[in-house]
Amino acid sequence: MPSAANPILLPELRVMLAEGDTAGLREVAEELHPATVAEFTEGLEPTELWRMLDAVPVERQAEIFPYYPMATQVELVKSGDRAHLGGLLEWMAADNRDDLLRELDSDLVEDLLPLVAKAERHDIRMLLSCPEDSAGSLMTTEYASLPADITAGEAISRLRSQAPDSESIYSVYVLDGERQLVGSVSLRDLILAKPTSLISDLMERDVISVRVDDPAEEAVEKLARFDFLAVPVVDDRNRLVGIVTHDDVLDQVRQEATDDAQRIAAISPLGESYLEAGIVSMAWKRGVWLAILFATAALTAMVLSTSPIRHAWLVAFIPLVIASGGNSGNQSATLVITALSTGDARLSDCGRILRREVAMGLVLGTLLAIPGYLLALVYAPTPLQALVIPVTILAVVVLGSLAGSVLPLVFRSLGLDPALMSNPFVSAIVDIVGIVIYTGVSLALLG
Amino acid sequence: MPSAANPILLPELRVMLAEGDTAGLREVAEELHPATVAEFTEGLEPTELWRMLDAVPVERQAEIFPYYPMATQVELVKSGDRAHLGGLLEWMAADNRDDLLRELDSDLVEDLLPLVAKAERHDIRMLLSCPEDSAGSLMTTEYASLPADITAGEAISRLRSQAPDSESIYSVYVLDGERQLVGSVSLRDLILAKPTSLISDLMERDVISVRVDDPAEEAVEKLARFDFLAVPVVDDRNRLVGIVTHDDVLDQVRQEATDDAQRIAAISPLGESYLEAGIVSMAWKRGVWLAILFATAALTAMVLSTSPIRHAWLVAFIPLVIASGGNSGNQSATLVITALSTGDARLSDCGRILRREVAMGLVLGTLLAIPGYLLALVYAPTPLQALVIPVTILAVVVLGSLAGSVLPLVFRSLGLDPALMSNPFVSAIVDIVGIVIYTGVSLALLG
Repeated sequence: MPSAANPILLPELRVMLAEGDTAGLREVAEELHPATVAEFTEGLEPTELWRMLDAVPVERQAEIFPYYPMATQVELVKSGDRAHLGGLLEWMAADNRDDLLRELDSDLVEDLLPLVAKAERHDIRMLLSCPEDSAGSLMTTEYASLPADITAGEAISRLRSQAPDSESIYSVYVLDGERQLVGSVSLRDLILAKPTSLISDLMERDVISVRVDDPAEEAVEKLARFDFLAVPVVDDRNRLVGIVTHDDVLDQVRQEATDDAQRIAAISPLGESYLEAGIVSMAWKRGVWLAILFATAALTAMVLSTSPIRHAWLVAFIPLVIASGGNSGNQSATLVITALSTGDARLSDCGRILRREVAMGLVLGTLLAIPGYLLALVYAPTPLQALVIPVTILAVVVLGSLAGSVLPLVFRSLGLDPALMSNPFVSAIVDIVGIVIYTGVSLALLG
Repeated sequence: MPSAANPILLPELRVMLAEGDTAGLREVAEELHPATVAEFTEGLEPTELWRMLDAVPVERQAEIFPYYPMATQVELVKSGDRAHLGGLLEWMAADNRDDLLRELDSDLVEDLLPLVAKAERHDIRMLLSCPEDSAGSLMTTEYASLPADITAGEAISRLRSQAPDSESIYSVYVLDGERQLVGSVSLRDLILAKPTSLISDLMERDVISVRVDDPAEEAVEKLARFDFLAVPVVDDRNRLVGIVTHDDVLDQVRQEATDDAQRIAAISPLGESYLEAGIVSMAWKRGVWLAILFATAALTAMVLSTSPIRHAWLVAFIPLVIASGGNSGNQSATLVITALSTGDARLSDCGRILRREVAMGLVLGTLLAIPGYLLALVYAPTPLQALVIPVTILAVVVLGSLAGSVLPLVFRSLGLDPALMSNPFVSAIVDIVGIVIYTGVSLALLG
């Protein structure tokens, strides 16, 4: 989410704050979209932000609050008045509130909970108890539900009085006496139906849902595949406990894509905005992987120190040979990792994937071997000796394609995230084996 | 989108097709969610698929059709009956139809268009005229609109008769006599309002929209930031021409994330499923980048061939030294590219980004220099000579972090996609400069 404060409005806001112009502050905080209010005021200090927020009722504050970056929300909670925070938490949407409470120290959460009304407190504890990355951690408890034995006309009146969030009124869930999910009906169908039609006749009985302890990815997949506005979440007895809405899935997909890209580049996912991440935490998330990669590079050095490659021209080609394998390995690894994570390919396709990658390695290896031979002719003493380079390039590119595709598949088959098989790691392995191949080919051709 | 055919249902379907069991085929194609029908029948041949689809009315066929992978849709169109295809295209949602027509040869499109009703034909031409990657290319022309001077009660009756797609009935756009966008109102607000309230009093006047020729990314950003179900698309005179809905944005975000990951690994985005991409097209999309990277690696070889690094132990450390720089450069490049593409950082943050990356390079470089020195002590003739390795590692890691962050920022400032500044390209540049640094440090310390 973009986070640049509006440089033009900030001075105006500061003037209003200095002059105690509550009417002006209220106008800003009431009239614009909550996302815009948050964006325009982000540059203010926490105490200034609270004074602006206090110009509007707590309901409105609860709409604006979730649009601040998480770090700002945490700052605001820490500097806010405790009694007021209880009311604010009651008004916040359940999923946004859950996201915020998960970022706070558990002591602070325990201090705040008694200030929240009892019914909300129950919801909060239930959501907080869902493991991270489960479907439950993405859901909100604010959904619209109906019994099956009323008419479409009655249903619309009841929805008016439930008046849930706009994000959740459009998909209405039909529950039996045990709160078990027995059907779903869209607001559109209710409006188009005759007011006397029974819900049980209108509803879709084949409801697609996820279990509260399913992985978050399951909810994302179902919402994306069926173009849903929301996916219902049930417990182990098929009782409705919440819904995952389209906007939370969109945020989740964007977050996962960033996490994956970071893993592919050998960084433990930051889980926060790049500019907000602390230097120590960032150094750890990068350093731990660099250290692992350093250890494999040290192995390469040891292998190379025992290698009889001593001719100056052969030494000059070392980086070129290993880069060719590494680059083709990176391409294969990224293609296989993204195909697995988008569902374009599955573990059961591994035969096809490996055949494709070997074929691709042969094509690309031949393509690079030709300029490799031409370049080697310039430096090698004889055209026969120059053959070391194209032969090694072909072998190393095939090896890179194969390693880049096999390693993510192995990780997936072990139940691990294939993106952990990061590109630098593939390169490191290809480096070591590449040096061995280079040495072998040199010995075979040069003696 | 997952694309594995259900291995259990396929034989059953083939039996139904062989026995001409139209009732059975109709049951499968009518009762399940269209996405599930497509998934379960994907393994059938085009002629078999048509025989199954023909068991249900064309309206239902039009619902199932867009859930097939694009390659299957194109196959079906090529093998389908022309007159029937006209009707099918009329019933398909405008955005899905546009996606399909963009994949067909323009001759085939011109053959098909006369078979489509005139009003739809106009919509088709308008959508096809939007450039790829524009907001217009994502939009559908099926939206619900109302004038401002009617009541909420009348509005609901009109929506019943417009009965547009469920995806678009929930956000209703208010147009003046010139079809200019003057407001928006949600179905929820219409239901909650008194039936006698005027739309002009209920509507939100400050409508957030995108221009039809804005980049697609603009529509994605607005929908994500404001948690909208749909973003209205207007022409240069603020007349409503379409809407971009949440499900298309989700697909777009997933596609963009995959494209970015592929660009970062130096692959021209496939734009199609990994397993469906042809060998020739894949070889081109990988080969062109491998060839560019090969050229930079050839430069490294040329630089190294003139370098006086000849001691066996110094040669052994070449891959380790350049991998350290390359890995840290990959990390920086990926962090900066993802921060720029998610909006976590902007070009105007470049001062902060560079300071962070230099600091990070110093921390991580020092971290790697220590084991580097210990390893060098084993191979170097004297502890003083061994100092070449930690000094070079520190310099190369700082260089890598700097190059990895500067290059994407330069690309962005030139208006290019920062992801084009792929990781292997960063590594290649760091390789060359790393060799120069290594040579320089060796000469300075060893003479």
